[in-house]
Amino acid sequence: MTIAYALDIATTNPFSFFKLLRRWHGSAWKNCAREYLVWIVAYFLVTYVVSHEMLPSDWHEILNGVVHYLDSKLAYIPIVLLLGFFVTFVIDRWKNILNNIGFIDCAAFVIASQIQGDAEDIVTQRRNILRYLCLAQVLTLRDISLKVLQRFPTLESLVQSNLLLEHELALLRDKDTVERYTTPINWAVRLSANLRLENCISSDTVLQAVVKEITEFQKLNQNLCNYDWVPVPLAYPQVAFCVVRSYLFLSLFARQVVFEHNAKTVEVDMESWAMFIMTMLQVFFYLAWVKVAEEMLNPLGTDDNDFECNFVIDHNMSLALRLADSHHGQIPEQVKDEFDQ
Amino acid sequence: MTIAYALDIATTNPFSFFKLLRRWHGSAWKNCAREYLVWIVAYFLVTYVVSHEMLPSDWHEILNGVVHYLDSKLAYIPIVLLLGFFVTFVIDRWKNILNNIGFIDCAAFVIASQIQGDAEDIVTQRRNILRYLCLAQVLTLRDISLKVLQRFPTLESLVQSNLLLEHELALLRDKDTVERYTTPINWAVRLSANLRLENCISSDTVLQAVVKEITEFQKLNQNLCNYDWVPVPLAYPQVAFCVVRSYLFLSLFARQVVFEHNAKTVEVDMESWAMFIMTMLQVFFYLAWVKVAEEMLNPLGTDDNDFECNFVIDHNMSLALRLADSHHGQIPEQVKDEFDQ
Amino acid sequence: MTIAYALDIATTNPFSFFKLLRRWHGSAWKNCAREYLVWIVAYFLVTYVVSHEMLPSDWHEILNGVVHYLDSKLAYIPIVLLLGFFVTFVIDRWKNILNNIGFIDCAAFVIASQIQGDAEDIVTQRRNILRYLCLAQVLTLRDISLKVLQRFPTLESLVQSNLLLEHELALLRDKDTVERYTTPINWAVRLSANLRLENCISSDTVLQAVVKEITEFQKLNQNLCNYDWVPVPLAYPQVAFCVVRSYLFLSLFARQVVFEHNAKTVEVDMESWAMFIMTMLQVFFYLAWVKVAEEMLNPLGTDDNDFECNFVIDHNMSLALRLADSHHGQIPEQVKDEFDQ
Amino acid sequence: MTIAYALDIATTNPFSFFKLLRRWHGSAWKNCAREYLVWIVAYFLVTYVVSHEMLPSDWHEILNGVVHYLDSKLAYIPIVLLLGFFVTFVIDRWKNILNNIGFIDCAAFVIASQIQGDAEDIVTQRRNILRYLCLAQVLTLRDISLKVLQRFPTLESLVQSNLLLEHELALLRDKDTVERYTTPINWAVRLSANLRLENCISSDTVLQAVVKEITEFQKLNQNLCNYDWVPVPLAYPQVAFCVVRSYLFLSLFARQVVFEHNAKTVEVDMESWAMFIMTMLQVFFYLAWVKVAEEMLNPLGTDDNDFECNFVIDHNMSLALRLADSHHGQIPEQVKDEFDQ
Amino acid sequence: MTIAYALDIATTNPFSFFKLLRRWHGSAWKNCAREYLVWIVAYFLVTYVVSHEMLPSDWHEILNGVVHYLDSKLAYIPIVLLLGFFVTFVIDRWKNILNNIGFIDCAAFVIASQIQGDAEDIVTQRRNILRYLCLAQVLTLRDISLKVLQRFPTLESLVQSNLLLEHELALLRDKDTVERYTTPINWAVRLSANLRLENCISSDTVLQAVVKEITEFQKLNQNLCNYDWVPVPLAYPQVAFCVVRSYLFLSLFARQVVFEHNAKTVEVDMESWAMFIMTMLQVFFYLAWVKVAEEMLNPLGTDDNDFECNFVIDHNMSLALRLADSHHGQIPEQVKDEFDQ
Repeated sequence: MTIAYALDIATTNPFSFFKLLRRWHGSAWKNCAREYLVWIVAYFLVTYVVSHEMLPSDWHEILNGVVHYLDSKLAYIPIVLLLGFFVTFVIDRWKNILNNIGFIDCAAFVIASQIQGDAEDIVTQRRNILRYLCLAQVLTLRDISLKVLQRFPTLESLVQSNLLLEHELALLRDKDTVERYTTPINWAVRLSANLRLENCISSDTVLQAVVKEITEFQKLNQNLCNYDWVPVPLAYPQVAFCVVRSYLFLSLFARQVVFEHNAKTVEVDMESWAMFIMTMLQVFFYLAWVKVAEEMLNPLGTDDNDFECNFVIDHNMSLALRLADSHHGQIPEQVKDEFDQ
Repeated sequence: MTIAYALDIATTNPFSFFKLLRRWHGSAWKNCAREYLVWIVAYFLVTYVVSHEMLPSDWHEILNGVVHYLDSKLAYIPIVLLLGFFVTFVIDRWKNILNNIGFIDCAAFVIASQIQGDAEDIVTQRRNILRYLCLAQVLTLRDISLKVLQRFPTLESLVQSNLLLEHELALLRDKDTVERYTTPINWAVRLSANLRLENCISSDTVLQAVVKEITEFQKLNQNLCNYDWVPVPLAYPQVAFCVVRSYLFLSLFARQVVFEHNAKTVEVDMESWAMFIMTMLQVFFYLAWVKVAEEMLNPLGTDDNDFECNFVIDHNMSLALRLADSHHGQIPEQVKDEFDQ
Repeated sequence: MTIAYALDIATTNPFSFFKLLRRWHGSAWKNCAREYLVWIVAYFLVTYVVSHEMLPSDWHEILNGVVHYLDSKLAYIPIVLLLGFFVTFVIDRWKNILNNIGFIDCAAFVIASQIQGDAEDIVTQRRNILRYLCLAQVLTLRDISLKVLQRFPTLESLVQSNLLLEHELALLRDKDTVERYTTPINWAVRLSANLRLENCISSDTVLQAVVKEITEFQKLNQNLCNYDWVPVPLAYPQVAFCVVRSYLFLSLFARQVVFEHNAKTVEVDMESWAMFIMTMLQVFFYLAWVKVAEEMLNPLGTDDNDFECNFVIDHNMSLALRLADSHHGQIPEQVKDEFDQ
Repeated sequence: MTIAYALDIATTNPFSFFKLLRRWHGSAWKNCAREYLVWIVAYFLVTYVVSHEMLPSDWHEILNGVVHYLDSKLAYIPIVLLLGFFVTFVIDRWKNILNNIGFIDCAAFVIASQIQGDAEDIVTQRRNILRYLCLAQVLTLRDISLKVLQRFPTLESLVQSNLLLEHELALLRDKDTVERYTTPINWAVRLSANLRLENCISSDTVLQAVVKEITEFQKLNQNLCNYDWVPVPLAYPQVAFCVVRSYLFLSLFARQVVFEHNAKTVEVDMESWAMFIMTMLQVFFYLAWVKVAEEMLNPLGTDDNDFECNFVIDHNMSLALRLADSHHGQIPEQVKDEFDQ
Repeated sequence: MTIAYALDIATTNPFSFFKLLRRWHGSAWKNCAREYLVWIVAYFLVTYVVSHEMLPSDWHEILNGVVHYLDSKLAYIPIVLLLGFFVTFVIDRWKNILNNIGFIDCAAFVIASQIQGDAEDIVTQRRNILRYLCLAQVLTLRDISLKVLQRFPTLESLVQSNLLLEHELALLRDKDTVERYTTPINWAVRLSANLRLENCISSDTVLQAVVKEITEFQKLNQNLCNYDWVPVPLAYPQVAFCVVRSYLFLSLFARQVVFEHNAKTVEVDMESWAMFIMTMLQVFFYLAWVKVAEEMLNPLGTDDNDFECNFVIDHNMSLALRLADSHHGQIPEQVKDEFDQ
């Protein structure tokens, strides 16, 4: 479920933003919590080992040299370049996937109003065309979204949810997997063509309008499949994952404060704390940034910020069937509005 | 209300830009004023404590060391990377939302000219179709824009504004929230289909043109809903907010001028002022940049630069009803133009 | 008037580019000349004051310290970040505005060929529909482009230019400002609908094609209005203006060469000149870059590179009326082409 | 074949990402393995030569100086700028090519449902129209994708795969290469026009819908041809290739640890290892990044991540023929759904 | 002619890329050769003057100081910022121009199949409509592309190429320049309208389909004109040209190795060579990058990588006339395909 927060920031002022910071679900805090805690604990472990003389004293100076050295070479890791590129790629894909999740509203308006008649068989066919659209969407989403697959683990579960009827299930089983996804769309198109033959659709122009809505709805499903079929090339998330984690790992050592034996303790302590706080901030910002990108890499998964496909399915099914029903075709009595004298 | 200033800069020269700088509403000055003042006061407080020997003298040297140290590590905070990314994301979304605020003009031209007839009931139905379009937009915007919600807090307030009639309100109440937003569109589409049956719309081709305008108008509303439903992932504004504020907070300390006891006073003073001015400029530029982005994050809110949805609603309602009215259908007498000999 | 130079660089070689450099209108040289000269004069004034011992000698050392200090802190001003962002935003908007300036050609082809007949009243109506399209564009552009407003300062001036007839002006005066812009489009759509009723347009399919061309032309005008209504948020040009000018101002001081009293004169002189040349180049590049962006911020203004809307208006009016005229409908005699044996 | 991994990361946590890291096909590891090993071996060879005193001792100091010098000048190579630009260009092109690989689904729904009739010659013509679409796609892809060319090396091989019939091959041979690609589309369009004449297509509206699907499918092929015809300008991959390889080559020398004769061995060793690890990471990240871009430069080639055009061809051929077949036109018996009481 | 190289890199490995490096036409090597050689010669000249004591000895030290100084200030020139921006702008425009070069294929399919009949005058008109489309494209491209202008220097040369007939030339001469470009489109649209009146086009629906293909083809020409009319604002190529050349010029001096009189010769030599190689690489990469951008600035010019408009013109003319011809309308005999049992 995506996290909405628009009303919190209707007026922009520093206090309205504090409301945003208090949120937990889908927040940067929740995303990073586990890995961030691990990092902090590890950092203090290293500090303890380095500073409390648990090592043979001749190793001490060497270690300090290495810490210095590592810190100066940490810039070798091109974290900004790779993260910037990876996040941009992922965001772009995320927006495209969002734009291709189909809402049935406009298709339902057109189909429900253009296939006219209150006879029971007409109503049934109208309902079925719209149900087939929802069915095609669910068949597609089951392959793409883990949540939808969990809800509809088998074709039988579709029958239980009344998205599919028993005799339709039998027909669907006969198709191989390639054809199965698009079979309900095929049914819907052919049913429309039949309705035209029976003159329930009044002209070819209307039929084309109906078919166009059906195919446009299907194109969205097709696009979702394509985005699933061709993901971000595997090497990019691998590299992005490694670049951040190796940076975090190396900074465990590189960001220790090196003290000399005759240093004043207070100063060393202050410096240690300053270093720790600055590094902690940096680590948090990099981690928070890449964690959201990792989450958005699969926007139809089960994370807090992932799209709630089940909501879309319910919305579509509910709206489609009501609009298709004849008694929902009621129009308010047409009376003059108040402006019209 | 967005702030227009195009005429100020019709000719580009340094002086025309000074006109821009003098503006207050929607300006960088107004956006940042409060936080900027707080920062400046805090900066001088820290300066006072550090430089006026209010601390025990042995702390002095230590503090100076920490200031130096913090300044050298301030670059650890990836402010440019995160801000650049956040602002780009927000601007992109802002532009898309702008492009999806629906103006009814073209829909009104088509509907008003294609549903012909001056009989009272035809006029009423024509007006109502266009009114339903406006109504659907208002129902959508009430959920998204705080200003529109403040104007129409309840469904009854829609009746008072004559956007909705009493008997339509009754029908609307029966629907659940999912269906309610799109019910007026459903009415408009079915009313058009009825007008075709009664031959007030002369052919299926014309009906399709009318239905297409209605569904395209609705698609804009739908897109606005989607942008509201799936905001910028919460973690990004959280991180952007934190990165700027932690930078500003740390620079309060890191950007103090450290003087040594035997330093020449004038030189120290000059340096202090130079440092203060440079830091002040930097802080202002970062703050100004991120504040506009924070404002644009919710472009339908109540800030100076936010879109004035109420203006669009009034424009649409006013234009739609006039065009639908029969006496507005008048065409100027057709006489030859002056070029035509 | 935009500056065309494509033929100068048909073949790319260093010499072809020198041709580009020689241009003055719309050039970087012309854009920056005034501000650049002011900056150079100011730089030498500061140099004179600093180096010719016009200050009390004890100030000398202090000033030098400040110059050094300022130079090292000049990087605090995030000029690259803010300029890069601002220019990208402005360029994107500039391209969109360019794409929304309507050429009437395709609308004219369709309208002129689909409304058939050589009777005088048909010709008049055909001409008027196209004239109304041009009129709607001019009404829109008058609000957006200073040049068009200067050409048509009042509605009467439209009558003098034969874009509007006297009796149409009277009708237009009755409308309020909201409706006025779109009234000619309304006339054109209704006139088309009437022509269909009188069977001058042969079928509803043709009518829809005509109406679609009209509304698509209007949508371009609408988009231009929107871009005018929602400009780049005011704070961005303000900040971009300030960031460059404060950088230039500070570099007047920060980029002076500090000499010590016992320095060799020749060396100091060489260094001074090297510093001056490098800074001069840097200032020129930043200034040239931001000046074009400032010019493109309002692409319909009166600068060298601004779009010449009056050319588009003349082109549209001239083309539309000729195509609408019956004797322009002539088709060449149809004879076999040479390839056809 | 592109590598799908969406289900691995349905829930984002550090462990789910480890699953990604374990993958080999299409991974960063596989892409870089060969070049990376070569680089590591070369690095140790250089280390051996430099550190084990295989050179005359007076060369030693000189070499060390050069190593130092090279390291400090390595930043002269604008690797980030050029790589960032090149990769962005390549990714953009890759996405466009992906979007232009045509799936026949929607065209098949429309064509199969709108050309009605179970007579054998109608079925044959319906099948042939869809077969011609697949054929046109294969003819185009043979020129663009090496894998498709390997599968269909000659026009005869198309006959063997039943995509083309013998007598059609004869017709195709008569055309020159320019015309050959589009000839099957021409056949499909003309066949549709004939079916309209024979009234198998019921109206011109339906015919236009059929022709529109055919031409839209062809436009995708056309776009693919254009992307093949105008590749990324040759100089860009050349420069990107050189910039990375010259950086890797120079870093073989620049990233050696220079020891002085009286250095402590342990410290030198630690530093050597730290330097080696940091450089190794950097080299890996740059190499991994550019290797994927090099692979995506020709997304229809034979690499792991390249699109599997043969899958699309099989999918299209299989789906198209089944849908065109009459006994696939069966619609489930229309019974009330469970929600409908 | 653009340079195709896709097959060289079907499989990505280091060796396949060496094939790319061997190319000369359109390569980075050819683009930069001249300027690069000039720069190298100039660099050695400066080296000779500086290092071989051709200057009075007291100038020596001063010069060395200046070289050091220049090198440290070379970063003042914002070459990365300006180049990055300029190249991105140019690439974006280049892609848009590519997408607007019109291929006539789809228009030809529709027009050739929808205007039916084998009577000689019908065939002639069908051919002429398509010839007019090609003619309009050539008239537009003559203004934009130097190569096309060289091929068709006058309107008479169009007659010689059989694109235009004598009596059509006479009509074209009568039009002023504004109208001339679009006159053939006007002829094509009106000819189609006439064919509808004579019932050679069977319905208004078909006519609209024909007119839509014609106007869409014309819109591509229109867009090309717009891109020609509004080029990249002149100041940008000027600044980009200057920023690279001033960087190259300054690096001639700044990148000399400064030796002290008592330096060891071998070490100096090694350092000189290291500096030369690094600078040479840097100069090459910047130069190669900007040269391609300069070439792409006018993608319809005469460079190696420019689009070959004459190929498109020939392709269109050849394809259009063949498709229009009646004997090309042959459809293969319709027999069952092999899959159909």
